[in-house]
Amino acid sequence: METEEQIIEVAEDVKRSGAKFLRGGAFKPRTSPYAFQGLHNEGLKLLLKAKQATGLPIVTEIMNPNHLDMFNDVDIIQVGARNMQNFELLKELGRCNKPILLKRGLANTIEEWVMSAEYIMSEGNENVIFCERGIRTYETFCRNTLDLSAIPALKSISHLPVIVDPSHATGLPWMVEPMSKAAIAAGADGLMIEVHNDPKNALCDGAQSLTPEQFDNVMGTVRRYAEFEGKVI
Amino acid sequence: METEEQIIEVAEDVKRSGAKFLRGGAFKPRTSPYAFQGLHNEGLKLLLKAKQATGLPIVTEIMNPNHLDMFNDVDIIQVGARNMQNFELLKELGRCNKPILLKRGLANTIEEWVMSAEYIMSEGNENVIFCERGIRTYETFCRNTLDLSAIPALKSISHLPVIVDPSHATGLPWMVEPMSKAAIAAGADGLMIEVHNDPKNALCDGAQSLTPEQFDNVMGTVRRYAEFEGKVI
Amino acid sequence: METEEQIIEVAEDVKRSGAKFLRGGAFKPRTSPYAFQGLHNEGLKLLLKAKQATGLPIVTEIMNPNHLDMFNDVDIIQVGARNMQNFELLKELGRCNKPILLKRGLANTIEEWVMSAEYIMSEGNENVIFCERGIRTYETFCRNTLDLSAIPALKSISHLPVIVDPSHATGLPWMVEPMSKAAIAAGADGLMIEVHNDPKNALCDGAQSLTPEQFDNVMGTVRRYAEFEGKVI
Amino acid sequence: METEEQIIEVAEDVKRSGAKFLRGGAFKPRTSPYAFQGLHNEGLKLLLKAKQATGLPIVTEIMNPNHLDMFNDVDIIQVGARNMQNFELLKELGRCNKPILLKRGLANTIEEWVMSAEYIMSEGNENVIFCERGIRTYETFCRNTLDLSAIPALKSISHLPVIVDPSHATGLPWMVEPMSKAAIAAGADGLMIEVHNDPKNALCDGAQSLTPEQFDNVMGTVRRYAEFEGKVI
Repeated sequence: METEEQIIEVAEDVKRSGAKFLRGGAFKPRTSPYAFQGLHNEGLKLLLKAKQATGLPIVTEIMNPNHLDMFNDVDIIQVGARNMQNFELLKELGRCNKPILLKRGLANTIEEWVMSAEYIMSEGNENVIFCERGIRTYETFCRNTLDLSAIPALKSISHLPVIVDPSHATGLPWMVEPMSKAAIAAGADGLMIEVHNDPKNALCDGAQSLTPEQFDNVMGTVRRYAEFEGKVI
Repeated sequence: METEEQIIEVAEDVKRSGAKFLRGGAFKPRTSPYAFQGLHNEGLKLLLKAKQATGLPIVTEIMNPNHLDMFNDVDIIQVGARNMQNFELLKELGRCNKPILLKRGLANTIEEWVMSAEYIMSEGNENVIFCERGIRTYETFCRNTLDLSAIPALKSISHLPVIVDPSHATGLPWMVEPMSKAAIAAGADGLMIEVHNDPKNALCDGAQSLTPEQFDNVMGTVRRYAEFEGKVI
Repeated sequence: METEEQIIEVAEDVKRSGAKFLRGGAFKPRTSPYAFQGLHNEGLKLLLKAKQATGLPIVTEIMNPNHLDMFNDVDIIQVGARNMQNFELLKELGRCNKPILLKRGLANTIEEWVMSAEYIMSEGNENVIFCERGIRTYETFCRNTLDLSAIPALKSISHLPVIVDPSHATGLPWMVEPMSKAAIAAGADGLMIEVHNDPKNALCDGAQSLTPEQFDNVMGTVRRYAEFEGKVI
Repeated sequence: METEEQIIEVAEDVKRSGAKFLRGGAFKPRTSPYAFQGLHNEGLKLLLKAKQATGLPIVTEIMNPNHLDMFNDVDIIQVGARNMQNFELLKELGRCNKPILLKRGLANTIEEWVMSAEYIMSEGNENVIFCERGIRTYETFCRNTLDLSAIPALKSISHLPVIVDPSHATGLPWMVEPMSKAAIAAGADGLMIEVHNDPKNALCDGAQSLTPEQFDNVMGTVRRYAEFEGKVI
């Protein structure tokens, strides 16, 4: 998310391709304090404009429990990988009534992940969605190693839905399509895919983003796979 | 592979379900020298009987270049994970004219794996098949972490076929079906699945084996997935 | 930290053995919300009593930026492994004037760790101490794999002091002595060692704690090593 | 090992600095078949000349059980990391009467390592030496992560000696000194350090090698540490 024009244009594109939610990063957890940190409150406002323009519900990441007031019009609140075991944040989110998208930590076990969901649910908010985004291993071909076995693993010990983020997991736009198909085949309930209208000039995460045209192609394939699995997008 | 009756019965069962190859372990690379090491030459003879009884081509693992003479009637020679960088064995196999099934090492990179295939091919044998069988990570839910991104990764840098072994990768029989579907969706050219007529009493790897009935179910699902991908089993 | 008697007794013991700081856990980041979470504000009060009784400066972990008011009499504030990339917490701590003990994340790189220190320092607080506490690997003999190469690595790219926590790293009390010696030999500026007067009945982390007697022995050895390195404890 | 002059010069240098053994690579297990593979039998001959010139016993790696005849004048036979679970090679070495230096596999557990030593010992050769050379993790600062906890771990479950190879473990010459000190402090019985008279122009592993002058300095430090530990070099 960089400018109003850009975010609304992308939002309309992905809606046309069949996206059901719009995720944008207003607060961005960057490794370095000197990297682009997101547009913060201005970013949230842009995201809300895209919501108004398209009617798509919006998802965005929270990094500080004290920011919760700013998230009133956000539909789903994301907890990023680096905060999966920020237990104070999880407990605070357990006291709000919005769905929480809980990304897996960089190197967290399935069991720790389920326990983090418990931190939210034990405070009263049972609306938690797991998001597999790859784990940290010795392999460097992809940015992370996408662990699709996490899907049946989670399904065997939890009733909560599981989605997959192939963009962050692989860091390679051409891997998004095969890994999206595989995620659906393994039982995923949804996908989160990074799209940018001009990946080469993106301020952040450009290298892994699809163009709207590429996203449209992937969505076509994914839709056929989901139907084959008896699911409706 | 334990007795003649057992192996032939399983071979006939899996053939009926649509298996195209029969893999059995005659020489077994066990972590401990005190664990069951396989039936060696006797095991090879049993496997050949199963081949005669069913007409299925057979696949089995070699651990010592000096054993190559015993593999005359074997159709595909497997190099196990622990020998993926046993370069002397690879070079020897590069001088024979049988297809080599090259399993990925416990913690080897895609690049190292491709280089190990080069050790075989640079000696003249270009008939190499990659087999992804999970990598070693911190996660303990499954025995290994199945890395399905290896399939498109390999396809992007090599022309060689890639198959997947969900049984060894996950160590959990109930994970074989979802991971088999996901492997096909990610572009795998084949699957290697462990079957035992009596998993609970198996001398080795029983915990991860399917019964012939379970295998038949998985094959039904996999066949539909392969057809959906435009492939024929 | 469980009761006033217990904490003061242990504090006096470790002071006698030469400890220069006293660390106690008031807020404890536990994987499960149903595990003992620490005594919170009551725990802080106990720790302050031990400080008054012994004169030892105290170190304790913060998990929520909103708790900072409670840490007025704490001498060094610890950021735990799970919060190493809780950037909002780091920035808040960058605006206070106390030394920050920054533990390495479960599976964070040296570079990410240095960047997290930058989050604190870029807000004005340059008093950061690194604490190596083992990283997550496939190996299960110890709880984590103590990465002593992190000490010279950090020294080569940062001027900040580095200490080592062999208790959390190994999870094995009998490993504390050899790993403490090795840490000093590798250039560590200090050690953080878990001590409990009754490890077998501890509410938390008992299995890895030394008794005060064992701690006294380890301190004797460490002192000789530090002197050999030309350092004074 | 590249030329006769070079190897003898380095051998004399390291002997003067106090080295007790000379290791040289005649057969080199390289990831790529197109990389320098060592001088093979010519390399063994050079190594023997260095042995004659200096009187130092020699250590070199075997990769193929069929090469054993060539190793008659080698004093200690090394099994490299990639062959730690080449069980056929281990069994063959168990039937010879030379000490075996067993390097840890890239990502093998302590338990698997001890079991590989059992493969050698169960055939009759009880003269096995473990060599820790770093394990494969997500961290990329060093080439591998040196696991010094392996030393007390092995000592707790085996009577066999343990040495450490800081050169291969870290891949950084300036890390050899602190990691050598730490290894001795953790209880190591010896060190294996890479030395090259002209690291910048080495055909292989130059980047991690010390010059003979640097080695002399490290040996001085290590000697003081060993004496402090009550050991004699």
